[in-house]
Amino acid sequence: MKALVYDGPGSRKWTEVPDPVITDSEDAIVRVDAVTICGTDLHILKGDVPSVAPGTVLGHEAVGVVEQTGPGVRDFAPGDRVLISCISSCGRCRYCRTGSYGRCTGGGGWMLGHLINGTQAERVRVPFADHSMHRLPREVDDETAVLLADILPTSYEVGVRNGRVTPGDTVLIVGAGPIGLAAIATARLFSPLQIVVVDPAPARRKTAEVYGADVTLTDAEGARAWVTSNTSDGVDVAIEAVGVPETFELCAELVRPCGRVANVGVHGRSAVLSLESLWDRDVTITTGLVDTSSTPMLLSMLAARRLALPDLVTHRFGLGEIQEAYDTFADATDTGAMKVLMIGDEADLGGA
Amino acid sequence: MKALVYDGPGSRKWTEVPDPVITDSEDAIVRVDAVTICGTDLHILKGDVPSVAPGTVLGHEAVGVVEQTGPGVRDFAPGDRVLISCISSCGRCRYCRTGSYGRCTGGGGWMLGHLINGTQAERVRVPFADHSMHRLPREVDDETAVLLADILPTSYEVGVRNGRVTPGDTVLIVGAGPIGLAAIATARLFSPLQIVVVDPAPARRKTAEVYGADVTLTDAEGARAWVTSNTSDGVDVAIEAVGVPETFELCAELVRPCGRVANVGVHGRSAVLSLESLWDRDVTITTGLVDTSSTPMLLSMLAARRLALPDLVTHRFGLGEIQEAYDTFADATDTGAMKVLMIGDEADLGGA
Amino acid sequence: MKALVYDGPGSRKWTEVPDPVITDSEDAIVRVDAVTICGTDLHILKGDVPSVAPGTVLGHEAVGVVEQTGPGVRDFAPGDRVLISCISSCGRCRYCRTGSYGRCTGGGGWMLGHLINGTQAERVRVPFADHSMHRLPREVDDETAVLLADILPTSYEVGVRNGRVTPGDTVLIVGAGPIGLAAIATARLFSPLQIVVVDPAPARRKTAEVYGADVTLTDAEGARAWVTSNTSDGVDVAIEAVGVPETFELCAELVRPCGRVANVGVHGRSAVLSLESLWDRDVTITTGLVDTSSTPMLLSMLAARRLALPDLVTHRFGLGEIQEAYDTFADATDTGAMKVLMIGDEADLGGA
Amino acid sequence: MKALVYDGPGSRKWTEVPDPVITDSEDAIVRVDAVTICGTDLHILKGDVPSVAPGTVLGHEAVGVVEQTGPGVRDFAPGDRVLISCISSCGRCRYCRTGSYGRCTGGGGWMLGHLINGTQAERVRVPFADHSMHRLPREVDDETAVLLADILPTSYEVGVRNGRVTPGDTVLIVGAGPIGLAAIATARLFSPLQIVVVDPAPARRKTAEVYGADVTLTDAEGARAWVTSNTSDGVDVAIEAVGVPETFELCAELVRPCGRVANVGVHGRSAVLSLESLWDRDVTITTGLVDTSSTPMLLSMLAARRLALPDLVTHRFGLGEIQEAYDTFADATDTGAMKVLMIGDEADLGGA
Repeated sequence: MKALVYDGPGSRKWTEVPDPVITDSEDAIVRVDAVTICGTDLHILKGDVPSVAPGTVLGHEAVGVVEQTGPGVRDFAPGDRVLISCISSCGRCRYCRTGSYGRCTGGGGWMLGHLINGTQAERVRVPFADHSMHRLPREVDDETAVLLADILPTSYEVGVRNGRVTPGDTVLIVGAGPIGLAAIATARLFSPLQIVVVDPAPARRKTAEVYGADVTLTDAEGARAWVTSNTSDGVDVAIEAVGVPETFELCAELVRPCGRVANVGVHGRSAVLSLESLWDRDVTITTGLVDTSSTPMLLSMLAARRLALPDLVTHRFGLGEIQEAYDTFADATDTGAMKVLMIGDEADLGGA
Repeated sequence: MKALVYDGPGSRKWTEVPDPVITDSEDAIVRVDAVTICGTDLHILKGDVPSVAPGTVLGHEAVGVVEQTGPGVRDFAPGDRVLISCISSCGRCRYCRTGSYGRCTGGGGWMLGHLINGTQAERVRVPFADHSMHRLPREVDDETAVLLADILPTSYEVGVRNGRVTPGDTVLIVGAGPIGLAAIATARLFSPLQIVVVDPAPARRKTAEVYGADVTLTDAEGARAWVTSNTSDGVDVAIEAVGVPETFELCAELVRPCGRVANVGVHGRSAVLSLESLWDRDVTITTGLVDTSSTPMLLSMLAARRLALPDLVTHRFGLGEIQEAYDTFADATDTGAMKVLMIGDEADLGGA
Repeated sequence: MKALVYDGPGSRKWTEVPDPVITDSEDAIVRVDAVTICGTDLHILKGDVPSVAPGTVLGHEAVGVVEQTGPGVRDFAPGDRVLISCISSCGRCRYCRTGSYGRCTGGGGWMLGHLINGTQAERVRVPFADHSMHRLPREVDDETAVLLADILPTSYEVGVRNGRVTPGDTVLIVGAGPIGLAAIATARLFSPLQIVVVDPAPARRKTAEVYGADVTLTDAEGARAWVTSNTSDGVDVAIEAVGVPETFELCAELVRPCGRVANVGVHGRSAVLSLESLWDRDVTITTGLVDTSSTPMLLSMLAARRLALPDLVTHRFGLGEIQEAYDTFADATDTGAMKVLMIGDEADLGGA
Repeated sequence: MKALVYDGPGSRKWTEVPDPVITDSEDAIVRVDAVTICGTDLHILKGDVPSVAPGTVLGHEAVGVVEQTGPGVRDFAPGDRVLISCISSCGRCRYCRTGSYGRCTGGGGWMLGHLINGTQAERVRVPFADHSMHRLPREVDDETAVLLADILPTSYEVGVRNGRVTPGDTVLIVGAGPIGLAAIATARLFSPLQIVVVDPAPARRKTAEVYGADVTLTDAEGARAWVTSNTSDGVDVAIEAVGVPETFELCAELVRPCGRVANVGVHGRSAVLSLESLWDRDVTITTGLVDTSSTPMLLSMLAARRLALPDLVTHRFGLGEIQEAYDTFADATDTGAMKVLMIGDEADLGGA
């Protein structure tokens, strides 16, 4: 089959690789119908994630149809249309038993497109299939469903839920890329009083408004000024959705006493934690990798049209055009790409 | 009356000052029977706390007897033996209404010996007396009670409760000074599996063992080695009870995924937050100033002998010997001082 | 002044009574601009609430303007437009300190129109004014604000918050009177998947749909049938908003394992608790009197138009027409009354 | 092999039955080394639990050694010494994913000695072995470990944790049988101020004192009198550990406003819920079947000698003497039996 292979820093190939086969009784083989590219994939390609070995098929977000299951798979059968979570879960380890699937120590966690071959391929082997996939209802189309593989539960669990967004809150979201936008959408599930979004890109600020941002600001200065003028002592919740020290530090600066800072961004460098001003401010700072434990709930809300991520997919390609899709996604400043979608040849796109 | 006055950086005087008078209807005047010195007082004397104006009477921990009350005081009367909390609370602001007295925006918070005259004096004016004092039962003596003014609720609220210590946990406490010891005592209220304490001072490690530490270690290297050998992936809770960047960073390094870091130390410098390794570890970091909301519970537990802080008071002086007491406390390395107690001339020491 | 006085079971008088005067330093005298009648007032008139002494002025919900304050009142001054909470709070007792104002043991709790004279009068004395009133922003009009005195925080705190409504939940609300409707409105703050409302009155079911009920049902049989057909094993949350044993029992019957039953109704008789089927179902049942601790948040949401209770006030009268208002409210089946509003002569109705 | 078979109401047989065999890939066959009798077994024998079919081998608590495992079992191998939980867990259903194993809808829940053959036999088939057994450390002996199968997690999860016992609480425990005693032991993990136990049997009250009860009372009258004299308005937490309406009703009567009633008892009849007095008292009532999610923590605490259940096993028998053991247990009033233990012939009793 064809797959997008990481060929060492700076290099990716759309090339022929062996078809995946079942190697464990709990595996499933899934035909990939819809797949996206994550910002993390770009980091891998830059060589920033040394745990990814050259030769690995990339990709950890997909929708597809089950083709084959190992004898230990109980809940899925060939023909089932499924969402593949970015997190695999053994279901048995200490962390999986408390729903912390992202921290699985039993052979799961972030595996696909990281430690094992991923979803940017015609087929993929999904380990611990019962715990790592979700059956899709007809009324959720592929394009919507694939956003549930990673960004929607990530923004909800690591941003909104860790940040304990509560009715009446003022919520600051720094960064209006896909994760920031999904954080707006999912923060609204808890009816904050107002959502304030900071992003330098005019197009992203505009989309943020469509998603329900009440205020959009351009930069740190603007954020400081807004907080000074519009809150008594800071925001209730600050969600970091960029992944650089400066944005994290801005969140820690603008949160009110007793407020919460929820870091969602993937960071490559340390930040300065100003304990000299924070030590007595009763702040709570959280970090986290997604667990995807909220996926069933989010899926039910999407199916019921209680939640939507409009216009998040900005570009669509055939799976064979994935190299072009990567170019488009990598050049987001010029192309305006948010999420790019690749559709497999046999895909039946769903949607009722 | 006589009082210990901050006379600018490096200078303190035991000198005659005007007696305090009631300036607000909710004030009480309290005769000081027992008072201690806090590490923060040393910081003030070094000039590290510029919000303290020269001329201020220091001290924020005391036990005494009410002499006079304003017309708005309902719950206390002259003659009542009381604990004076280090935190004053207006009882009406947004923060006080949720029990976050330390963040009071209505004229309270940390006031005594900071923004108004404090307790290291023969008498002290306590603002918002109904919300800032606690009646003492006969069976709790002055020496025990005064520890409730600050360190006991601080270690409990900011360390143990913020760190969500739970039965079965492995708890790391960095620092075995008064706060660290009180953190051991109050962590045990939640029955952790084991408490590991790090402190370079042999005498403090020994006291830590008396308090219930299961393991005592000398330094960061020892802590790293112990955690590697004795836990699968870190401690459940790490409590910082020193107040320097290195100890905070050690806590953040040794906590397990999904664990909690509770900072209790007073910091004067920033720390490095290694987001490149923490971003996906699901850690929760908290900071806080004590609220003293737990004081009634802790008092009931002390009175019932369910909680004890043995040997925490290492030196005792008359109130007139406070300068000597300061010298002893400041030179803790040589004197072995933990808490030093000054007793007023008219004190009736309590204890049933 | 004129006031509506309870004259013993079955009898009410709109009659001349002495003007209220300040009897405690924390009292305020408020001119009543808008006041409503609560279902509880009807119970009192029937003689069901023996703690109400004949001669008491009824009413515990009002909006008005402060005319006079005692010397201990700090946060209000004559001329302030205020909401009077149905709950008075001393602010100092054990319960008030944890926000459980409804259980105040310091002279507050449900006082107005119960143990002291209430708000169905031209003027009212409000005890513990700082803790028992809320300043009203211009943009919230009297008619909206008065609903904050009782029913909005009651439905939110005792129904939605006690029931821990969470995104994705299926919520059953039994009763679509004012409390049930407010429960729909406030449950939606947490984005349940669907809200199912049971009420025999067609008009109330229709209003429930306007409020956002996804399904409306007529009776217990209908509710049972719907739950069987549409859930796997019951609803996540069941909110009782009627106050008779049968509706409580229905909630306990239809909640799923691990679900929550939140009782909001005022009950005069015992219910049967079917422990033989509930003992192993992991259910949580809560009861409660409103604390009004959520009033500031709800007020901010109303002011920002994030929350609305449209058409809840069905009838409007002058304060002097209160007897007619009572007749209208008592005869809700025929008049369709939900909340009836009485407007004082000097009222400036607010709304920006 | 030999097994204790339920032979219809009133009849039990120790008889030859076929050896268990692996029927599902996730099964394990375990040789039973230590097994007890639960009060529920007596209910079954009376015919009170119609879901148990005649011919079923009874018993849901045991310690043993794995003899055989299905191909889907990953975490256990023949020779492993294990605790068999009273609850089997599929690990995949909605309830198991949130740790509510007791409510498993995937083929687990309370299965052993209920819907499938149980542990009162020489061998037992354990379904979903990875999720339903726990490896035993050498230092926990059989006699201690077997108490972890049911009563220790039951009292902890359903009593103490549901009741949210907190430092400083006054806890009422009604019933001092095995579950009540284990509730005392596990409530102490949260350092309540005092534990008050009610039981009519003098021997049980005496054992309750050994376990840490601060006050023991004989009956409801005594409990009412104690609460009136020693609390301001009731107990913080009331744990029902008997299983009859009267004791539940006593708990609901004696709990303070804002307190919690945690029902642990197995009930066969309805109770009266006095909503006319409870509706405004802010009480929380919980019910529950054990999940055994706390078993790993409790096991670690037992192994570390942080928790103990001394003298709970009052009688010991060989497995072949199980009929005599039943007689002893059933006649607890005369024999003083708490838990009776049967030891298999090949047992190696553990304990380091």
